[in-house]
Amino acid sequence: MPIADVRAFNRAIVDATKDLVCAYKPNIAFYEALGLEGLAALRDTTAYIRKTAPDAVLLADAKRGDIDSTSVKYAEAMFDYWGFDAVTVNGYMGGESLSPFFNYSDRGVFVVCRSSNPGAREFQDIIVSPDAQELGMDGSGQKMPLYEWMAVRSSKWNANGNLGLVVGATSPEQLRIVREHCPGVPILIPGVGAQGGELEASVKNGMDCSDDGMCKSPNILINSSRGIIYADRSADGFADGARMLQHDCVMTSTACWRRRARRGNAV
Amino acid sequence: MPIADVRAFNRAIVDATKDLVCAYKPNIAFYEALGLEGLAALRDTTAYIRKTAPDAVLLADAKRGDIDSTSVKYAEAMFDYWGFDAVTVNGYMGGESLSPFFNYSDRGVFVVCRSSNPGAREFQDIIVSPDAQELGMDGSGQKMPLYEWMAVRSSKWNANGNLGLVVGATSPEQLRIVREHCPGVPILIPGVGAQGGELEASVKNGMDCSDDGMCKSPNILINSSRGIIYADRSADGFADGARMLQHDCVMTSTACWRRRARRGNAV
Repeated sequence: MPIADVRAFNRAIVDATKDLVCAYKPNIAFYEALGLEGLAALRDTTAYIRKTAPDAVLLADAKRGDIDSTSVKYAEAMFDYWGFDAVTVNGYMGGESLSPFFNYSDRGVFVVCRSSNPGAREFQDIIVSPDAQELGMDGSGQKMPLYEWMAVRSSKWNANGNLGLVVGATSPEQLRIVREHCPGVPILIPGVGAQGGELEASVKNGMDCSDDGMCKSPNILINSSRGIIYADRSADGFADGARMLQHDCVMTSTACWRRRARRGNAV
Repeated sequence: MPIADVRAFNRAIVDATKDLVCAYKPNIAFYEALGLEGLAALRDTTAYIRKTAPDAVLLADAKRGDIDSTSVKYAEAMFDYWGFDAVTVNGYMGGESLSPFFNYSDRGVFVVCRSSNPGAREFQDIIVSPDAQELGMDGSGQKMPLYEWMAVRSSKWNANGNLGLVVGATSPEQLRIVREHCPGVPILIPGVGAQGGELEASVKNGMDCSDDGMCKSPNILINSSRGIIYADRSADGFADGARMLQHDCVMTSTACWRRRARRGNAV
């Protein structure tokens, strides 16, 4: 689905959705595939978002991750050069490898925990038996899926309070477990729409509310990409896609709060 | 250690090493950190390598990995736009997520198996218990470290014979185990030099030789980055760094073959 003019396409999306969304999450791969010209279009797009939707969070979906001396450079690229507010990263190489990202205390670092793709289960769902003594970490004797261990471990990397997690809407039960381990941590939830993720279950299981029904901040970022940008490729289409998602999220979260409140507590 | 002119710096390295190395492995992060200008310098550098060292393999150290529709774009970027012969990728999201890379049957895909950084152990060394029945895969009832499971699984993704693995020189014992699981698969071995990796043990344990001492192709790529490019920043320094590594590799591999031959078989 080639796009003749990336800048104009993106501007139309931003114009149509600026009052409906809290964040924009450019997927860096789609710009890289267009080479230097694509990355120049990304630069102009982020500048346009800053001007047009100054309160929106700019999140780079980049899934970066490498040894620390290389992560220093990826972090410089994402935060200093591109000026993103947050980035998605891959934790397979451990927290030490990601520390250059976390060291930017005013930026968010979203660690992929349970991804939204069918192949996620090949590694993320297998059972691990962390040996605390050998590895010098806690969790000895416990068994859990790898994605859960990623959540448990990554919450140790949060000295600057800038950790986020990525858990796909295609796995709401895993989302519930991650939320239990990581209260207060923002969770980016991709996979709604084209990938068949479950919006209602994701909102219910991802929202960061205490049992008394209080919810100062739900701490979830529900992401819809194809559901909005490929809606019907018109200003009305982009806005309708965003409004539909917003409406569904609000309805679900309201219902969720009400259910919790009905258990005997005030909202 | 800022470099005033990236193009000139890289040209000097290529000129000094073109008859000493089999591959160049640009680390994409270092170019991304310099923004569009850095990536333009990378483009000119790869063109210069193609012209000056046409037989050298061009390997992008990029550690990419995302859901399949995004991996399609990363693969396009790395193989179509940049024209790399091979790329390093991250398998945390499973083989299905990497299939767009493997579909380029004439390009190499090096999956990070056991990385060279100290934090690698946090996830890669924990014991996993794959449940074949539940996951629809083999390996039921076996326990092994995660990096080993990555090696076992990734060898299933090799329908096009273009799989490679990344195992750091800092973990030669893990390298031996990976080689046992994956005969014939090229292994990229970073971490020699600045990271303190063990060259001799890596060559011994990584080389793909049968027990009769025959070694048609050793199938290892020993990588030294800082040991060469930061040698003393002169043509002689770059060449000396590469020659030293080459000499050590040849001495070690020759000794290794001799030892195997002495066990009663002809070389």
